[in-house]
Amino acid sequence: MILWDNYPVIKEEMDIFEGVLRKFLSSKNELINSALGSLASAGGKRLRPAMAIASAHFGEYNMDEIMRVASSIEILHMATLIHDDIIDEAKTRRGLETIHQQHGINIAIFAGDYLFSKSFSILSLEGNRNLLTHIASVVKLVCEGEIEQYRSRFSLDMTIYRYLRRIRSKTALLFMLSCELGASVSHCSRDVINQLKRFGLFLGMAFQIKDDILDYIGDEATVGKPVGNDLKDGIYTLPLIYALSNDNDGRLSGLLENQPYDVERIINLVIKYGGIEYAERLLDRYTDKAKAKLDKLPHSEFRDFFFDLTDDLVSREF
Amino acid sequence: MILWDNYPVIKEEMDIFEGVLRKFLSSKNELINSALGSLASAGGKRLRPAMAIASAHFGEYNMDEIMRVASSIEILHMATLIHDDIIDEAKTRRGLETIHQQHGINIAIFAGDYLFSKSFSILSLEGNRNLLTHIASVVKLVCEGEIEQYRSRFSLDMTIYRYLRRIRSKTALLFMLSCELGASVSHCSRDVINQLKRFGLFLGMAFQIKDDILDYIGDEATVGKPVGNDLKDGIYTLPLIYALSNDNDGRLSGLLENQPYDVERIINLVIKYGGIEYAERLLDRYTDKAKAKLDKLPHSEFRDFFFDLTDDLVSREF
Repeated sequence: MILWDNYPVIKEEMDIFEGVLRKFLSSKNELINSALGSLASAGGKRLRPAMAIASAHFGEYNMDEIMRVASSIEILHMATLIHDDIIDEAKTRRGLETIHQQHGINIAIFAGDYLFSKSFSILSLEGNRNLLTHIASVVKLVCEGEIEQYRSRFSLDMTIYRYLRRIRSKTALLFMLSCELGASVSHCSRDVINQLKRFGLFLGMAFQIKDDILDYIGDEATVGKPVGNDLKDGIYTLPLIYALSNDNDGRLSGLLENQPYDVERIINLVIKYGGIEYAERLLDRYTDKAKAKLDKLPHSEFRDFFFDLTDDLVSREF
Repeated sequence: MILWDNYPVIKEEMDIFEGVLRKFLSSKNELINSALGSLASAGGKRLRPAMAIASAHFGEYNMDEIMRVASSIEILHMATLIHDDIIDEAKTRRGLETIHQQHGINIAIFAGDYLFSKSFSILSLEGNRNLLTHIASVVKLVCEGEIEQYRSRFSLDMTIYRYLRRIRSKTALLFMLSCELGASVSHCSRDVINQLKRFGLFLGMAFQIKDDILDYIGDEATVGKPVGNDLKDGIYTLPLIYALSNDNDGRLSGLLENQPYDVERIINLVIKYGGIEYAERLLDRYTDKAKAKLDKLPHSEFRDFFFDLTDDLVSREF
C-alpha cells in the first residue's frame, strides 16, 4: 500500500484531496450515499489523483481547479472498479465487501453509472472543452479494453502485442490522462505536457505488468487476493503468454484445456518457461522509458517525487 | 409503434437522423460493433430525438448541430436501456435478443458504459458547457430514480408522491432534456425554451403513466411483453399503489405477500379498486398540462406535430 505519509511533498494535498473527494461523493440521495459510503471511506491508493496533482505543480498551480480535476479522475476510476468487480464477481475490494456483494448487482450497475455522470458533471465545470472530448474518448477506449479482455478469455492465440494493447487501454491511458489533465489545467507548455503524458503512459504500462506478475508470484497474504486470480478467470497475461511460446511439448497448453485449472502446476510451468523473467524484462523496459521522460522535465521536488513513486510502484509486493 | 411515416413534417429528418446515429454507433472496434450492431439496427421509436429535432425548429434551425445533439440523447437512452435490461433480466427488446442475453452480462455492462462515454463525447463537441453540466445532472437523477425503484421493490408503503418522483427521474427528465437541448442549440428565447421544457416534462410523465397502465390492461400480443411484467418484479406502479389505498379488507395486500404472485387475481383487484381509473385521470391531467404548455408556443407545423404526437402517445395500446 502506498502511504502518502512517506511522501512529504504531496502529503498535505492528498489529505485535502480526501476531503474534497468525500464532498463530491456525498449525494443528497440517501440511497446513493449508503451504496457509495463504504467505497468513499475505503481509502484506495488515490494514485491517479496524486499523479494529476503532482503534474499540476509543473505549471501555474491552482488548488481548487486541480482538486476538482483530480476528483473527477478518481470518481471515473471508481466507476470502472464497481463495474469491474461485478464482472470479476469479486467479493471484496481493499478488505471491504464490494458494492454488488453488499447491495446487489443492480444497485452496483447504477452506482457505477451514477459515478460516470458525476465525473463528467464535475469535468464539465472546467473551461476546456477539448479535455472533456479527450476524456470521453479515453473512457471509450477503457471500455473497449475491458470488452476485448473479456472476449479473449481462455484464448490460446493471445499475442504479446494484443496483451500490450489491452493493458494500454485498460490501465495506462488513465494514468496518462491523469498527468495530462493535471499539466493542462495548470497551463504547462506543450512540451512539458507531452513529457508528462508519456511518463504517465509508460508508468501505467509498468504498473499493470507488475500487477500481472504479482498474480503469478505474489504472496497471497501481502497481495490481499489469491494468486492465480486472473488466470482462473481465463485472463491470460504476459507471463503466461510468453511461457506458451516456449511450451514446445504442449504441457502448458494441455493444462489450460482442463478446467478448473490446476493453478499451482500452471504457475510452476510459467516460471519454468521463463514467463516471469520475460515479464520482468518488459517491466524494466517500461520503467526505463518512464524515467527517460522524467529526465526531460525541469528539476523540481515533484520530478523527484515521480522518480520515487515509479521505483516504489514497480518494486511493490502487493 | 410510432411510425414517422405518419408525420410528414418530420419524416425526412428522422430518416437522416437514422443515418447519422448509425455512423456515430459504428466503432473502429469490431467487438463493439458486433455488440451494438443489433441495437443500432433494431429501430426503436427514436421518440427523444424526434422531440429534440421538432423543438429545434422553434428557433434558428441548424441541421448538423441538432443531429449531433439528437444522436447523443438517443445514445444516452440506449445506454440506460442496456443496463435496465440486465437488471430486469429482459430476454428480448423490440423482438430482438437483448445484449446481455446475446453477449453476456459483462459485455452488456461495458457496452452501456461505452455508450455513456460516446454520448458525452458527442455532446462535448457542442459549445455550450452549461448544457453538458445539465445533462450530466439529469443522468445522475436517472440513476437515482432507477436505484430508488430497485430499492423500493415489494415495498407496500410506496406512496403516489414517491411514484411520481420516481417516474420523473426515470423517464420524464430525459423527455424534458430532449426538448430543452433542441430548443437551446437553436437559440430559442428563454420563454420558448421554458415552455418546451415543461411540455417535455409533462409529456414524459404522461408517457410513463400510460406505460404503467398498459402493464395492467394491455393486450400482450400488442404490447409485445407479458402483462404484469413490472408487477412480478415487485415494481409497484400507480394503478396498484392507488388500489392499495382502497384495500380495506386487506385482500390485495394479502395477495402481495405470496410469491410468485397470482398476477391475474391481483390485476382484477387493481381494476376493481379503481386503480386503472385513477391512473387514467392522472394521465389526462398530465396530458392537459402538456398541451397547455404547447398552447403558449407560437403557432407552427411543429406545434401541431407536438399536439398530434401527444395524442398518439397517450392513447397508444402498445
